[in-house]
Amino acid sequence: MTVKGISMRLTVAQLAERLGAELIGDGSGQINGVGTIETAGENEIAFIRGSKENHVHSGTNANVKYLSAVKQSLAGAVIAGMRIEDLDKPQLIVKNVDAALIEALNIFAPNLKPLSEGFDPSAKVAESARIAKGVAIGAFVVIEDGVEIGPNSVVAGGCKIGENSTIGNNCHLDSNVVVYHNCHLGNNVVIQANTTIGSTGFGYSLIEGSHKLIPHNGGVVIEDFVEIGANCCIDRAKFGNTIIGPGTKVDNLVQIAHNVVIGKNCLIAGQVGISGSCKLGDGVVLAGQVGLTDNIEIGDGVIIGAQAGVMNDIGAGEKVVGSPAINSKEAFQIMGLMKRLPKLNKQLKQLSKRVERLEAAEDNKK
Amino acid sequence: MTVKGISMRLTVAQLAERLGAELIGDGSGQINGVGTIETAGENEIAFIRGSKENHVHSGTNANVKYLSAVKQSLAGAVIAGMRIEDLDKPQLIVKNVDAALIEALNIFAPNLKPLSEGFDPSAKVAESARIAKGVAIGAFVVIEDGVEIGPNSVVAGGCKIGENSTIGNNCHLDSNVVVYHNCHLGNNVVIQANTTIGSTGFGYSLIEGSHKLIPHNGGVVIEDFVEIGANCCIDRAKFGNTIIGPGTKVDNLVQIAHNVVIGKNCLIAGQVGISGSCKLGDGVVLAGQVGLTDNIEIGDGVIIGAQAGVMNDIGAGEKVVGSPAINSKEAFQIMGLMKRLPKLNKQLKQLSKRVERLEAAEDNKK
Amino acid sequence: MTVKGISMRLTVAQLAERLGAELIGDGSGQINGVGTIETAGENEIAFIRGSKENHVHSGTNANVKYLSAVKQSLAGAVIAGMRIEDLDKPQLIVKNVDAALIEALNIFAPNLKPLSEGFDPSAKVAESARIAKGVAIGAFVVIEDGVEIGPNSVVAGGCKIGENSTIGNNCHLDSNVVVYHNCHLGNNVVIQANTTIGSTGFGYSLIEGSHKLIPHNGGVVIEDFVEIGANCCIDRAKFGNTIIGPGTKVDNLVQIAHNVVIGKNCLIAGQVGISGSCKLGDGVVLAGQVGLTDNIEIGDGVIIGAQAGVMNDIGAGEKVVGSPAINSKEAFQIMGLMKRLPKLNKQLKQLSKRVERLEAAEDNKK
Repeated sequence: MTVKGISMRLTVAQLAERLGAELIGDGSGQINGVGTIETAGENEIAFIRGSKENHVHSGTNANVKYLSAVKQSLAGAVIAGMRIEDLDKPQLIVKNVDAALIEALNIFAPNLKPLSEGFDPSAKVAESARIAKGVAIGAFVVIEDGVEIGPNSVVAGGCKIGENSTIGNNCHLDSNVVVYHNCHLGNNVVIQANTTIGSTGFGYSLIEGSHKLIPHNGGVVIEDFVEIGANCCIDRAKFGNTIIGPGTKVDNLVQIAHNVVIGKNCLIAGQVGISGSCKLGDGVVLAGQVGLTDNIEIGDGVIIGAQAGVMNDIGAGEKVVGSPAINSKEAFQIMGLMKRLPKLNKQLKQLSKRVERLEAAEDNKK
Repeated sequence: MTVKGISMRLTVAQLAERLGAELIGDGSGQINGVGTIETAGENEIAFIRGSKENHVHSGTNANVKYLSAVKQSLAGAVIAGMRIEDLDKPQLIVKNVDAALIEALNIFAPNLKPLSEGFDPSAKVAESARIAKGVAIGAFVVIEDGVEIGPNSVVAGGCKIGENSTIGNNCHLDSNVVVYHNCHLGNNVVIQANTTIGSTGFGYSLIEGSHKLIPHNGGVVIEDFVEIGANCCIDRAKFGNTIIGPGTKVDNLVQIAHNVVIGKNCLIAGQVGISGSCKLGDGVVLAGQVGLTDNIEIGDGVIIGAQAGVMNDIGAGEKVVGSPAINSKEAFQIMGLMKRLPKLNKQLKQLSKRVERLEAAEDNKK
Repeated sequence: MTVKGISMRLTVAQLAERLGAELIGDGSGQINGVGTIETAGENEIAFIRGSKENHVHSGTNANVKYLSAVKQSLAGAVIAGMRIEDLDKPQLIVKNVDAALIEALNIFAPNLKPLSEGFDPSAKVAESARIAKGVAIGAFVVIEDGVEIGPNSVVAGGCKIGENSTIGNNCHLDSNVVVYHNCHLGNNVVIQANTTIGSTGFGYSLIEGSHKLIPHNGGVVIEDFVEIGANCCIDRAKFGNTIIGPGTKVDNLVQIAHNVVIGKNCLIAGQVGISGSCKLGDGVVLAGQVGLTDNIEIGDGVIIGAQAGVMNDIGAGEKVVGSPAINSKEAFQIMGLMKRLPKLNKQLKQLSKRVERLEAAEDNKK
């Protein structure tokens, strides 16, 4: 399967210059894409993450495997943070491999036709909506009364934007996103396909034997540079707003309930569920499938391991795992002992027998 | 961020009258919204949940925090179940705080323009569909042959309603909901955005080395007053129907598999997964991220804790937690002992040494 | 609730002939549908799975309950793998009950009107798209430049197909599916409603205090006979492709992250999350709500129990459960001992007292 529309071809030397890299070796080879050490072909550049690890994603197993494979790689050149000895291919030495990788990927990005500026003729845009210059609105979009959209934002096909919601500058809403009424997106916000923003939360009161919905008069505020994956749900608040702080990134299929407040630059991995009125500080990392009970506070910089179930407040900087979640050091000690339970059980039995023998000896003496 | 279109302004006294509340204090202040004790401003009314707790939601930490904060609150007035002494703001004393809160939220709900009655001209409605009076059908909706929709229901933009499906009175389907063929919704059903009703379930037979789909000839029945969150999936049955009983409420991102039968007034929190052919009684509560294996029965009034994994039938009234789920009392005892495992391990080692010493003493005597 | 449009009526004898079954008993009754032993009426045929179990789905509790109920069943006839003694209703004896069941369900499937061949006039199909004969494209579909769709595929209402993506023959995309650019579907692929294919993965680098997205230049490859449920997310690759191998089946609300490679004929149940760059062999079974950390390898034929959290590579043929996941035999032993922890704790205390008494006796002798 080949990717259509290769957009760019550069020599190794040209690429080194564009990346501000020190070139070691022959600069004449042709590069037209980026690959991993394992998969890159002769016209692709691969990358080696060095010891100064500044890469953040959902896991940590990725890096150790790279170095051993680099010498067998078919890649036409490599980007690295430090010179690799005895390597018979060109090296582009950079200060920050991740930044160079992002730049290289942008250089060799597939050549896509952007959605045209203006309204697709099929879109249904309310007269009272205020749509800035440079905005592109796709086919079969519905934009209700009082909506405002800032310059250069893109609202792809099939999106629905509810009454009085606002979208800032340079936002990108992918196909079939639903934003209910009174939701507010800052600038440079990305929301991927089929995500729902501003649904009514799960808040009921049991009145005379039936669950009655507590009306959700509040909204949602999504601040600048927030990026939200596909098929997520961000519920609106009962009062005030559900808030996602600037720079926070949210993976796919995540549930963020009513009145949750999330700080800056958090990372929230796939299928996480955050219950109502939780407060997260800045720089919090929630790994995949984590669940938080309602009304708890998670301090700045907390890291919560995959599938953890958090039932209590967590102080800043703590690392917790497990369900119910506890401090990770304590948890790993307990997990170790759980694996040793069969042995402990055996030891207990043996000890019991030894005590029996001692008791028998003692009895004999009487 | 201010909410546009405040719809209503009342004096404290007027609001007390509308809520049937006893007014204590000055009734002349202006109220235009509802807030929490922590967030309400001087023109908002806050609420205090009293000791007669009848609030049901996904968690229980919410209430204890209220009373301590009430005296510092900026709220212009409070709704409470009993008089609070030494409070220098007007109090509206009601029998049921939750009911009064719901009423107050409805009074001060944001003023939204309803979807107009009739068909948006872009909607594609089959000629054989029978659409009652007062139904509103949004833009880019597809309604297939044989569909019936009862009076005053709303089908928002982008919904797709499959052949021969029926929707009762006063239902509300939000944007981009997909209902497949032969699904049946009662009256007063709410389905939020991007939810899928009637998808084919995950039932395969391994025949000659390949997984062959078992055709799903059945449908889905969703009874009166059921409310379903955003981005959920309710699979159709292989035979008969997947059934969600009256008054049951379902949060976001929930998976309900083929042939599941759910009773009345259940609460199913976010990201729960219910496998094929499970039977749930009435009043069952499943907290967030719970999973049920297939073909089990959950009795009336069972409460299943967050992230529990249920592998067996659960008798009526039981409370279970953990994965695999067991009775919560037993589970909490075991969890307590697990946390004490390091100590138990140490005790076992010390005991072993003491026995060694006794054995040595015994040996010496021989 | 009766299903409209019964499509077919056969006598028991006619049905036996169509299924290639041996008929035992009276062949004159009328059959118009398939049901379970518990629910089938007098005009429906039920089925009994025999001892040669070849049924694969998310659980295993289903079968033991059948035989005891068969004699009370109201079914007009039964399909079985071997003759049942003393049963006063007609039996259709077949070699493979599951294959016969699938055939019977197909015979009695509800009579649905297929989406018409050709483009719905509302669909927005790029001129450069190459759409084969026999393709049906529903209302409000968007098909971008360079898309190719093979013969007899169906793209239902509201789908969005991104630039240069390709769809093979006999595929079926249900309503509101979003396929981003440069994604490639083989033949006979089914994708259910509201699923997202080709979203950008969750890969960020922390650069100068902000999380910067790693551009995802790669795509998604979905091979022949793959079936994907509703509201799933399959992320595109950073480099190369995210790949789902032929014959693999994926349930609802599943997250498959960037650069994951899945083999042939795997079964991936509801709400599973597979993190970035995982490699799964052939015939792997992941039960509901399983999570895999990134960059691990799962061997051929591995079975992973519901809610397991897998942190390490798993060798071919292994069966693991738990979070963190371990070999299921070991895990069940540990779980058994955990349930015995209160007893072990008591034994340890009693033993400690017995040792104390021995020590006291020893002291007395000195």
